[in-house]
Amino acid sequence: SRSLRLAVIPGDGIGQEVVAEGLKVLAAALPGDVKLETTEYDLGARRYHASGETLPDEVLAELKTHDAILLGAIGDPSVPSGVLERGLLLKLRFAFDHHINLRPGKLFPGVASPLAGSPQIDFVVVREGTEGPYVGNGGSLRTGTEQEVATEVSLNTAFGIERVVRDAYRRAAARPRKKLTLVHKNNVLVHAGHLWTRIFQQVGQEFPEVSTDYLHVDAATIFFVTQPERFDVIVTDNLFGDILTDLAAAVTGGIGLAASGNINPSGAFPSMFEPVHGSAPDIAGQGKADPTATVLSVAMLLDHLGFTAEAAKVEAAVAADLAERGNAGTRSTTEVGDALVGRVSG
Amino acid sequence: SRSLRLAVIPGDGIGQEVVAEGLKVLAAALPGDVKLETTEYDLGARRYHASGETLPDEVLAELKTHDAILLGAIGDPSVPSGVLERGLLLKLRFAFDHHINLRPGKLFPGVASPLAGSPQIDFVVVREGTEGPYVGNGGSLRTGTEQEVATEVSLNTAFGIERVVRDAYRRAAARPRKKLTLVHKNNVLVHAGHLWTRIFQQVGQEFPEVSTDYLHVDAATIFFVTQPERFDVIVTDNLFGDILTDLAAAVTGGIGLAASGNINPSGAFPSMFEPVHGSAPDIAGQGKADPTATVLSVAMLLDHLGFTAEAAKVEAAVAADLAERGNAGTRSTTEVGDALVGRVSG
Ligand SMILES: CC(C)[C@H](C(=O)O)[C@@H](O)C(=O)O
Ligand SMILES: CC(C)[C@H](C(=O)O)[C@@H](O)C(=O)O
Repeated sequence: SRSLRLAVIPGDGIGQEVVAEGLKVLAAALPGDVKLETTEYDLGARRYHASGETLPDEVLAELKTHDAILLGAIGDPSVPSGVLERGLLLKLRFAFDHHINLRPGKLFPGVASPLAGSPQIDFVVVREGTEGPYVGNGGSLRTGTEQEVATEVSLNTAFGIERVVRDAYRRAAARPRKKLTLVHKNNVLVHAGHLWTRIFQQVGQEFPEVSTDYLHVDAATIFFVTQPERFDVIVTDNLFGDILTDLAAAVTGGIGLAASGNINPSGAFPSMFEPVHGSAPDIAGQGKADPTATVLSVAMLLDHLGFTAEAAKVEAAVAADLAERGNAGTRSTTEVGDALVGRVSG
Repeated sequence: SRSLRLAVIPGDGIGQEVVAEGLKVLAAALPGDVKLETTEYDLGARRYHASGETLPDEVLAELKTHDAILLGAIGDPSVPSGVLERGLLLKLRFAFDHHINLRPGKLFPGVASPLAGSPQIDFVVVREGTEGPYVGNGGSLRTGTEQEVATEVSLNTAFGIERVVRDAYRRAAARPRKKLTLVHKNNVLVHAGHLWTRIFQQVGQEFPEVSTDYLHVDAATIFFVTQPERFDVIVTDNLFGDILTDLAAAVTGGIGLAASGNINPSGAFPSMFEPVHGSAPDIAGQGKADPTATVLSVAMLLDHLGFTAEAAKVEAAVAADLAERGNAGTRSTTEVGDALVGRVSG
């Protein structure tokens, strides 16, 4: 019999609650002969306060031995900004070379969009995950004084861009519309922008069936709200992808529904799946959090591990659940999870 | 009698058409004893193709002698990306130290928003204009090869941040709601982000009447579409401001209505006013372009030069025109201009 060795990082706030539901749905969706083995890791604000640790080397080494990672949410206002982001979340992405940050933007039937007229939205953002302004290559001089100067360096390599661009072309080629949009700011960030543009055009020659276009990031935000149906696959840099995928979540019904994968397609390291939302300390522990984004992240995890039919089943369960929610009273976190388990098992 | 010495850069595409209307409204709005002296400068794609020049030193020196600059739009697909942006638009901002990039986000009554329920939107973005990732401090190594590495450096100084933050506090203090939001990404870009945050808090001590909050740029895009009414004044870095103000334009009815000012409050250099939209070559020369954004930029120009009542009159004319547009047939560029002149003179 096969097994799936999953590392679970529930994290902070609502992370615990939504991950519990995600695991229930995962267990229900997996084929009967696959044994799900989970190991839980206590990381996040609590551990940081208790021991000062964000991601100890031993934990990193243990995480590496798993097939995949499921993460809930990390963060708490009691921890200074940047400590858990750089010391845990980004450290994981860099250590496991998660260069494909995959974030679907899909407006499911029945979900209210803040956009008038509820447009058809079904695109996916392929965000670069290991370069750009996220590399942590910044510093400051005369820190804390009136003469302080602070820098942040965006590092971009042909190697790093080519692999994410090729991945995006492959995904576009596999979709019905076969359309790929590069988003950057190549009229201002000319060096990074021209490198992205050159590689985008170069790799495109291998995919003549994919139609392409280019948008500056500022213009892209306009189309996200005025014409989101124009997008199929979007490939973009780390920071622009961060910004655009929150906006994508907003126009497709909110971050309560937005899933993501931090993927290393080579399999050399485990990929990690997590809802885009944060730890929402204001509603933590109240059983109010919507676990749907986590469940959709579980669908991405299944798909990544080759359980394609099972992934589709989970996504279909979510779609059916969302379509029927209507104006029904608000359900608790476990009620939503149970409903999804029911659909997946049914 | 007084005079207003205005440098006019119509630029490319629809730039010519919208600037003509802007000037008509400006002439109609100015007090009778103010002589409007305009000098037109031929800059943009045409000049670049003819002579290779983007912004010659002599032109820069001449521009400097004016009270203000009105710009239409710059850019054409025939010019490589970055040439006119860095060589003309950004060169002007840096040469004239336009550190306050002011961009209102206001949904006028009668204007359709892509957002459901047409929320109340009335904020202003104070975007830093001379630092951050816009400084042009990038480069590339092994350019054009598979080993290329390209960098972009974001430069941030206490001096540069303090002046824009103080300006934003002043603007917030002068508005009824007195609320200022800092937008950055201080959990990832920790050096630049912490500098912005420190100065934001420090300067805030001089403005106890202003309430403040902080949002990461990704979260800010969510609120732009789900709760835009929460914003009053926003202060942010150059790149985040670029992105957020296009999104702001989109949710307030489109870039056909978005005005901007590149301001040097010291008066040491002329400030420049321009619509946020581009040269729109697809509709150029057809009398179709909406001159409203240019006219609203003229209102900002008037306000900047101390013609406060006249600025209010122009904005009121635009508001009345927009409120009455309804489903009336599309008017031409000059028809809109004439209607606004009529209202301003009436
Ligand atoms: C928490 C933060 C480091 C992270 C990012 O900026 O990538 C988050 O915003 C995200 O999008 O996953
Ligand atoms: C054209 C470009 C240089 C410019 C910018 O990025 O600032 C434009 O997008 C703007 O917002 O004025």
